Amino acid sequence: MSLTAVQYGVGPIGRRLVETAVARGIAFVGAVDVDPSLAGTDLGEAAGLAEPLGVSVTADADAALAAGPDLVLHATSSSVEAVEPQLVAAMAAGADVVSTSEELSYPWRAHPAVAERLDAAGREHGVTCLGTGINPGFAMDVLPAVLTTPCRSVEAVRVERVQDAGTRRAPLQAKVGAGLSVDEWTATVGADGGHVGLPESAAMLAAALGWTLDAVEETVEPVVADERVTRDHVTVDAGAVAGIHQVATGVVDGEAAIELDLSLYVGAPAPHDAVAIRGVPDVDVVVDGGFHGDVTTPGVVLNAVPRVRAAAPGLATMLDLATPHVDAGAGR
Amino acid sequence: MSLTAVQYGVGPIGRRLVETAVARGIAFVGAVDVDPSLAGTDLGEAAGLAEPLGVSVTADADAALAAGPDLVLHATSSSVEAVEPQLVAAMAAGADVVSTSEELSYPWRAHPAVAERLDAAGREHGVTCLGTGINPGFAMDVLPAVLTTPCRSVEAVRVERVQDAGTRRAPLQAKVGAGLSVDEWTATVGADGGHVGLPESAAMLAAALGWTLDAVEETVEPVVADERVTRDHVTVDAGAVAGIHQVATGVVDGEAAIELDLSLYVGAPAPHDAVAIRGVPDVDVVVDGGFHGDVTTPGVVLNAVPRVRAAAPGLATMLDLATPHVDAGAGR
Repeated sequence: MSLTAVQYGVGPIGRRLVETAVARGIAFVGAVDVDPSLAGTDLGEAAGLAEPLGVSVTADADAALAAGPDLVLHATSSSVEAVEPQLVAAMAAGADVVSTSEELSYPWRAHPAVAERLDAAGREHGVTCLGTGINPGFAMDVLPAVLTTPCRSVEAVRVERVQDAGTRRAPLQAKVGAGLSVDEWTATVGADGGHVGLPESAAMLAAALGWTLDAVEETVEPVVADERVTRDHVTVDAGAVAGIHQVATGVVDGEAAIELDLSLYVGAPAPHDAVAIRGVPDVDVVVDGGFHGDVTTPGVVLNAVPRVRAAAPGLATMLDLATPHVDAGAGR
Repeated sequence: MSLTAVQYGVGPIGRRLVETAVARGIAFVGAVDVDPSLAGTDLGEAAGLAEPLGVSVTADADAALAAGPDLVLHATSSSVEAVEPQLVAAMAAGADVVSTSEELSYPWRAHPAVAERLDAAGREHGVTCLGTGINPGFAMDVLPAVLTTPCRSVEAVRVERVQDAGTRRAPLQAKVGAGLSVDEWTATVGADGGHVGLPESAAMLAAALGWTLDAVEETVEPVVADERVTRDHVTVDAGAVAGIHQVATGVVDGEAAIELDLSLYVGAPAPHDAVAIRGVPDVDVVVDGGFHGDVTTPGVVLNAVPRVRAAAPGLATMLDLATPHVDAGAGR
């Protein structure tokens, strides 16, 4: 019998989750989105699938959740405060939840009260809630943690992630401010703090390594294009903003023990993910080309489903669950 | 209160386990080795530590296990058939067991009856037994499995591991036949099959990916030195054997879906571990310098201890346990 699911959030990421979930044999029984232009649309059509799924998108979450799905796939907002009532409603309907909300990947440090309430809701309803994705959720937290497995001791972890935003979805380019002037960028993207999730990754990594963080410091700055760059969804003129360079530093005993360095801009050369562990022994790893965010987030989310289904009730993190790997049996 | 342990096997690997365990605060209450030259020696002295540990090495396993340790660290033999009675005795004494026996990392395919009996012994005594190390246990199985986490689907996994045996412990050089003539190598190392564990890694990886193996095919051949090579513990003349090149191929639906390619010889240039995943998307990763086996096996073993302590009773594999990472709290 197929696993049943409600898709909560049918934006660009939600649509990719639907595509991957259908490929895994998951049966959708409902879909929620507040966008009026999607109301009444078949979820398969909204997700760009060749076949309709026989499920209409609605803004009425209660109505959709009334189907009593096994699982809710959730992709609405980065903010754990914004998504809390949505997640609680999903859990109250008896569903395990996997969400791409960046702050949900490790809310225990920045939003401990929300984390406590979500954990309690999961325990009350006997279901598990997880926030994950490629970043946060894997590239800058789970992968570096796993790479410390052969170490006798670790002093510092540095992760560098370089992505060409020109190969990413259009909303991501807007999120990093591609095409804006520096002043426009400063008033919008810069003021909002850029990409969400680096402090969550730093906190999850610190918890895994048994480190107590004195502080997590974060900087975000615009990357300005030297020359005109054209990609599928965007053109950036010379002198305009191409994207962001963002660094989160986890301070332990006064030292910068964790450094997460993210460059996400249109035209970034030689995309890659690199992990450098200083310890006994050092571990230096490069992922050639890097993990492409739009392509890999659905993989991380759907591959987590069997482990979330098997986990103890409550709010989980990726590092609480069993060792992750591809799991094409997610729909079984 | 410290975790108490018995060291079962005080050879080169066992000594490194002791060193790392002591650094983690584990308290040894016994030590077992059949080598008459070690009988009565203090374990700290046998392990080359600066201080004695107040525990003598004995060939009498029952006497050592009578101390009722929380944990047995085991390093005696690659063969799961050879170690079965040792592991059962340790479990019967109420100890969780972490062993470097290569075949124990995943005995379910090649030795299912032994695996069943060990699993039953663990359940009977309420303890957990794990076989692990850097290879098998991490470099060619756990790490490639984890690296599939972002994938929507996977078609093939190739792992290449190149180690300079000249920087490894002397018994390892003997194991790969460094310094032998090709005829001597063929009659000894070649006849014995070389390094133990590649088929176990292939089987563990296949199980993680949900693949059914038609067969695991393995080849081992001598690597012959072009010119004279000198290292700490060994000199290899031109024309003599420098070590091994060994390949295990996991066949799924008639295709070579898993390929594990190990080069382990004195003077191997540019040591590294490389993982190449063909799927959606491809994942290509290189570990610069590679994971040095002698240095990293104690890390993998000791970092597994807290997860083994927390695991359900029975015979576990690395992929059954929670997500691995360095865990300096192993002795707490």
